[in-house]
Amino acid sequence: MKIVLDCMGGDFGPGPNVEAAVHSARAHGYEIVLVGKQELLRPLLVQHNTANLHLPIVHAPEVIEMHEHPAQAVKSKKNSSMVVGMQMVKNGDADAFVTMGNTGGALAAGLFYLGRIKGVQRPCLSSAFPTTRGWVLLADLGANADCKPEWLAQFALMGGIYAERVMNIHNPRVALISNGEEETKGSELVQETHQLLKKMPLNFIGNAEGRDLPAGNADVFITDGFTGNVIVKLSEGMGSFINGMLKEEIMRSPLSKLGGLLIRDAVTRVKKRTDYEEIGGAPLLGVDGVVIIGHGRSKARAIESALQRAAESVERGVVSAIERGLEALPAA
Amino acid sequence: MKIVLDCMGGDFGPGPNVEAAVHSARAHGYEIVLVGKQELLRPLLVQHNTANLHLPIVHAPEVIEMHEHPAQAVKSKKNSSMVVGMQMVKNGDADAFVTMGNTGGALAAGLFYLGRIKGVQRPCLSSAFPTTRGWVLLADLGANADCKPEWLAQFALMGGIYAERVMNIHNPRVALISNGEEETKGSELVQETHQLLKKMPLNFIGNAEGRDLPAGNADVFITDGFTGNVIVKLSEGMGSFINGMLKEEIMRSPLSKLGGLLIRDAVTRVKKRTDYEEIGGAPLLGVDGVVIIGHGRSKARAIESALQRAAESVERGVVSAIERGLEALPAA
Repeated sequence: MKIVLDCMGGDFGPGPNVEAAVHSARAHGYEIVLVGKQELLRPLLVQHNTANLHLPIVHAPEVIEMHEHPAQAVKSKKNSSMVVGMQMVKNGDADAFVTMGNTGGALAAGLFYLGRIKGVQRPCLSSAFPTTRGWVLLADLGANADCKPEWLAQFALMGGIYAERVMNIHNPRVALISNGEEETKGSELVQETHQLLKKMPLNFIGNAEGRDLPAGNADVFITDGFTGNVIVKLSEGMGSFINGMLKEEIMRSPLSKLGGLLIRDAVTRVKKRTDYEEIGGAPLLGVDGVVIIGHGRSKARAIESALQRAAESVERGVVSAIERGLEALPAA
Repeated sequence: MKIVLDCMGGDFGPGPNVEAAVHSARAHGYEIVLVGKQELLRPLLVQHNTANLHLPIVHAPEVIEMHEHPAQAVKSKKNSSMVVGMQMVKNGDADAFVTMGNTGGALAAGLFYLGRIKGVQRPCLSSAFPTTRGWVLLADLGANADCKPEWLAQFALMGGIYAERVMNIHNPRVALISNGEEETKGSELVQETHQLLKKMPLNFIGNAEGRDLPAGNADVFITDGFTGNVIVKLSEGMGSFINGMLKEEIMRSPLSKLGGLLIRDAVTRVKKRTDYEEIGGAPLLGVDGVVIIGHGRSKARAIESALQRAAESVERGVVSAIERGLEALPAA
């Protein structure tokens, strides 16, 4: 197993990436290619015990920054860690690519350098979403603001395959996000997609409303990239909002301050249950290779999990399963 | 001031409606027409001291239930409290209509019996949304799953007028919900709407992302009814999700249980700050009359607030301001 890790991605720089690579190589025997600025990576790597580990550095002098326009950056920065890493997968020099960097950049680089799996109309971004019943998969996250019903149907198929093979969910329940449960509810896009999904070889459980998402009432939630993006950013914002307001109110009296101290461990456990550390990253589905994108805020443990998701995606043949799944669909 | 209150609406039946009407009549001197089943309303009303108050009962033997198909119910149940009440406003027998009932029913009855304000292409549902900086207005909530740019531009104008006149926000900041801040981001609908909004006599501050909503980074958030519905249901769901998970973790140890008791007042204050009690209801914007729709979960205090919003909407001329605002727009 040979995974390329974009060591320049993420809010905390190369440090957590290198640390995660060392741990993963030791724990699982993976070869992890560290791609990025070698003058930064080498001094970090020598701080670790890397005896008997396969951790080659591939120099990439450029970086696609978080604020850059994805498509432009990917085209102009051919020596960026994102492009160099993606090309290694394309050329067969590595099995998978993992990044905590610019999500749009990873999408653009994936489309441009890996291309689409045969039969895929549009790749989609996915994300793990924390729920009462554990993590579920949400797609699209913003790769396609305007979608066609056929695209959403493919997102459902791809998401279902990933959930089954990598998230270990048997016969995952797939739901379509709508503004009402009934199949007559929804935008035109959703109503047409609903009819397509009913005919597909999926455990399609129908429309889901916004509240079904945190309740975990499906395993895979499908929506267009516009709505998906609003959902993810709103739910992150709601978390901070409730947390911030609770802190503010707790600070108003000495007794509630004491209460705040006593529930600190409980709060930490809640954060852990909703944190990306465990899940690490989610796949860019539909490109012709395994690409796992993690959160910019990821620390070493989350990056290790992302590397794990990448390895499982390779071992469990997610890409070829998607290709076969699409081939097996009856012609529209 | 004569307000019709649909006493059959809401999850708790006529009790809280009657109670709210009595309080409002006493506190503000309003005449409140109680519309609903008189055999239920009369015994409730006599339990209160109603000396010198104007609280006539208008009998309406039918009820539009929460689960009913709105347009069908409104057409078939001509003697429902919703239809009877709305017709009183239409006929000039009352100044405003307030309901905690079926939102879709209120929209359908409003469209059917009150009609649209001159120049309005589509009415929209709005909702008060709790944020770090207080309550803001969100529209559309689901009246129009598929929208045109011109409709969204009108929602912005109407929402801005309501925020200024009734929510007392001077020169309210209007934002368009999108999947990115830049004006080039968004679905086709959002990109076109953005260009329209830039030309309108509004304090348009640009696109807002999901996280800007709980942060209160605008006073009026505009979106299509599909996205608006997902937002409201997701945010309600997120609240329960975080609350439920925190409770679960707090119950795991005796010390954190004690902590939970000590922060109980703080939690109550958080709930109060995010509860609809204060705000009561939000307007159905664009119909030719004042209609305020409250949450089904409303208790007496929330219904009182909704009656207050209705009175303010009448006093401050929201309907005629919308008509004048639309007339003043340059032709498209």
